[in-house]
Amino acid sequence: MTISLQTKPLNQKDFAAFGDILDASGRPDKFINQGKCGRFHNKAVLDFGEDGHAGLSVFKSETCAFPVTIEMVERHPEGSQAFIPMSENPFLIVVAPDRQGKPGAPLAFLTSPGQAINFHRGVWHGVLSPLTEPGLFVVADRIGSTPNLEEHWYDPQYVVEC
Amino acid sequence: MTISLQTKPLNQKDFAAFGDILDASGRPDKFINQGKCGRFHNKAVLDFGEDGHAGLSVFKSETCAFPVTIEMVERHPEGSQAFIPMSENPFLIVVAPDRQGKPGAPLAFLTSPGQAINFHRGVWHGVLSPLTEPGLFVVADRIGSTPNLEEHWYDPQYVVEC
Repeated sequence: MTISLQTKPLNQKDFAAFGDILDASGRPDKFINQGKCGRFHNKAVLDFGEDGHAGLSVFKSETCAFPVTIEMVERHPEGSQAFIPMSENPFLIVVAPDRQGKPGAPLAFLTSPGQAINFHRGVWHGVLSPLTEPGLFVVADRIGSTPNLEEHWYDPQYVVEC
Repeated sequence: MTISLQTKPLNQKDFAAFGDILDASGRPDKFINQGKCGRFHNKAVLDFGEDGHAGLSVFKSETCAFPVTIEMVERHPEGSQAFIPMSENPFLIVVAPDRQGKPGAPLAFLTSPGQAINFHRGVWHGVLSPLTEPGLFVVADRIGSTPNLEEHWYDPQYVVEC
């Protein structure tokens, strides 16, 4: 048995409880470079805990196709994690609210071109799910020596339709 | 009078003195997500000084076209600055070595799809120069309250040919 789930377009109102959307919507906070460039300033709540610090890594992932089965979500108790797509291709985002230390029912979002996201520290989320090649992202997350991963395997599993 | 300059493809050997290239070249440091995703781990030397911390901002810039006139380079004495393109379009990078507190002659690089870069703290560099729409980047740089910008205006100016 599986439970069916529909995607919603990624939007501020529904995603705010889980993280930040990084995009160029609205007015820039500042114009730089002789007015040629808009800076949308400090759009993500970064938090790398007591003993961690910020790092930039590159992720290259296989793509997935709808319907997408969600077997597992994970969270990083020690740090936030931002995914910045290095293409204009939409990707799938799955998050779940915390229910007394376990994830509740997941929600699925589909990004638009020009949207990156940052999961707040400790937020349950699905693995990186590009839908199109090249599946290439820069990830801003915690560099540290202590464990920073919890996984939860769903039973029944969820199946995300486009 | 202007001085002509040719671009080189962005490459590790020539860029190492100025910053880091973030890409998925070589072998991943680790496979995650049940082997479906390669993690190229911690590819940038981030440095935000004593009183700063990491932030993620979005830059939306006008595009430029060759020949590109380099009137000015700048540097951030208090922090590194990474530019992550949210498209597969190449962009122009200009850097200059420091010569006793002033920039020397600039060098110009052209990125390939899938390359982001991080300027090390204090490196002289040109302003963000996308060549193609949408000119959209996530920038990982210093959030702090103290001044963090020095500019140098070239005379004569440089003109970058493709």
